[in-house]
Amino acid sequence: MQLAAVGVDLGGTKIAAALVDENGNMLQSLRVATDVDGGPSAVLQQIRELVSNIAHGRGVKIVGLGVGVAGQIEAGSGMVHFAPNLDWHEVPFQAQLSSACRLPVIITNDVRAITWGEWLFGAGRGCNDLICVFVGTGIGGGIVVNGKILNGCSNTAGEIGHLTVDLHGPRCTCGNYGCLEALAGGWGIARQARQAVSDNPAAGAKLLQLAGGEQDKITARMVADAHKGGDALAGNLLQEAGEALVAGMVSLVNAFNPCRLILGGGVIEGLSELVDRVRLGVRQQALAAATSKLEVHTARLGDDAGVIGAAALALQSFDK
Amino acid sequence: MQLAAVGVDLGGTKIAAALVDENGNMLQSLRVATDVDGGPSAVLQQIRELVSNIAHGRGVKIVGLGVGVAGQIEAGSGMVHFAPNLDWHEVPFQAQLSSACRLPVIITNDVRAITWGEWLFGAGRGCNDLICVFVGTGIGGGIVVNGKILNGCSNTAGEIGHLTVDLHGPRCTCGNYGCLEALAGGWGIARQARQAVSDNPAAGAKLLQLAGGEQDKITARMVADAHKGGDALAGNLLQEAGEALVAGMVSLVNAFNPCRLILGGGVIEGLSELVDRVRLGVRQQALAAATSKLEVHTARLGDDAGVIGAAALALQSFDK
Repeated sequence: MQLAAVGVDLGGTKIAAALVDENGNMLQSLRVATDVDGGPSAVLQQIRELVSNIAHGRGVKIVGLGVGVAGQIEAGSGMVHFAPNLDWHEVPFQAQLSSACRLPVIITNDVRAITWGEWLFGAGRGCNDLICVFVGTGIGGGIVVNGKILNGCSNTAGEIGHLTVDLHGPRCTCGNYGCLEALAGGWGIARQARQAVSDNPAAGAKLLQLAGGEQDKITARMVADAHKGGDALAGNLLQEAGEALVAGMVSLVNAFNPCRLILGGGVIEGLSELVDRVRLGVRQQALAAATSKLEVHTARLGDDAGVIGAAALALQSFDK
Repeated sequence: MQLAAVGVDLGGTKIAAALVDENGNMLQSLRVATDVDGGPSAVLQQIRELVSNIAHGRGVKIVGLGVGVAGQIEAGSGMVHFAPNLDWHEVPFQAQLSSACRLPVIITNDVRAITWGEWLFGAGRGCNDLICVFVGTGIGGGIVVNGKILNGCSNTAGEIGHLTVDLHGPRCTCGNYGCLEALAGGWGIARQARQAVSDNPAAGAKLLQLAGGEQDKITARMVADAHKGGDALAGNLLQEAGEALVAGMVSLVNAFNPCRLILGGGVIEGLSELVDRVRLGVRQQALAAATSKLEVHTARLGDDAGVIGAAALALQSFDK
């Protein structure tokens, strides 16, 4: 019988689940709004229902369940130390879910799950040394080295949003200064845009208009839209964000010397020119020896990467 | 019979060689001035003599020869693509040396060799995820991930001196701006000192005096010496270099989440307080989850790390 696993992408807004076979094909998928207020027990119940609906009547053998969640996860035990979007602290969710679904369960960080997906079935296929960088509200990453996902000493490797690229730069939410995501992540771009509009309302007229006159409602997406409409201020803001993104990618390429650099996430999807910008910038600014074999790609699986990757991790872990 | 290997540290000034056993003990060592002008054939002859003197009459079985050299080396073939201190380009030195010495030979980058030494027999002993950072004239690094040295896609991983830490910073010799070594490497510190003395000769009187009145002869060591004598300008220069070093280490810790960070090299040896500075700075500025298990150590093997590490690599490679 064909082997498959259920992949779950557990977010603060929605829970997506899919039945995925060994070739990365999604055989069926479902999603529901996350019952954040209900806490871990309500979410557990939601996932149990998704799994039982998905698993019902399919001619495949389900080896287990993989779950990606934004937060700090303990390797092995799958203890969720902290999941900010769910407001969970120290929830032994892997054990609870395994017992509720009567299936082996493995929980990992959401970006790590996406990286599994892109590595095995997306833009990273066939490559054993790669870095996936996801630029959304924040910036996260997953790293594959010598054909293995890099977990690190306390399972937090890949915090690429917190590379220092401008030590005299603005403060980051982490408390440090000049982090990559404070300059090139969605929240950083929005913050810089609000500041720029405040400094120069005339130049910021277009952005302010897109935000319905409310400066505090300016988002990175509005900056991208204004730029596409030819707005100069938005163009400058994205120029600076692009410079910071290139600087961060140069650091990664010089330190890791990957074969592939894969870029995805909402900001990249909204501004696909950033991939060309990074490709060119890294070629110009990183060491020639470190870029001689480097390929820069756009992520391929989009929103499905998380469920496909989580399922792939489960197949890898439980298909014995 | 006890197994051993010969380790060679091939530099632009000297060639050091040592017979090293499986426990990292140096049984004998020799060194000669490098005959750079004689080119690869003269250096080949020098190493052959060192090896034959070292190997003579010892009651050990020599499994092979490991060589560390500053430059770009091709993995496997040991082709020296470029060795700036020797002015070598595309020298198939591993094959030549193996044939001349009638021993298996493995050539690696010098910093990689030092990392092997510190990892197996120095401050990295027993640790499977670590980063060695060597701050000398430039800054280089070696990375151990999942119990393996990280080579990267084109064998250049670990170019830590070229992490971008200040994207608006000064130009680096690599052509990029704001690289770690342009701010915290020996040459960077010297350049900033010369500029500072030029900008303010009164504040720079002490440094100028140490350089015999010649601004262009100011070195990083003089800055360290002036600082120890209480010179304020030197103190400021080192403060800034320390900030940049911390920023680079924060990037590494957030990206790799190593268990140990090991600092060595001439600048660290001359300013041992930098290790405390990094320990504290990384704790304060990197993500808490990424530093929860991190230890920061000073390298232990000093000048011997290169020969010990090169020998260890040979033992690892040829002891079958």
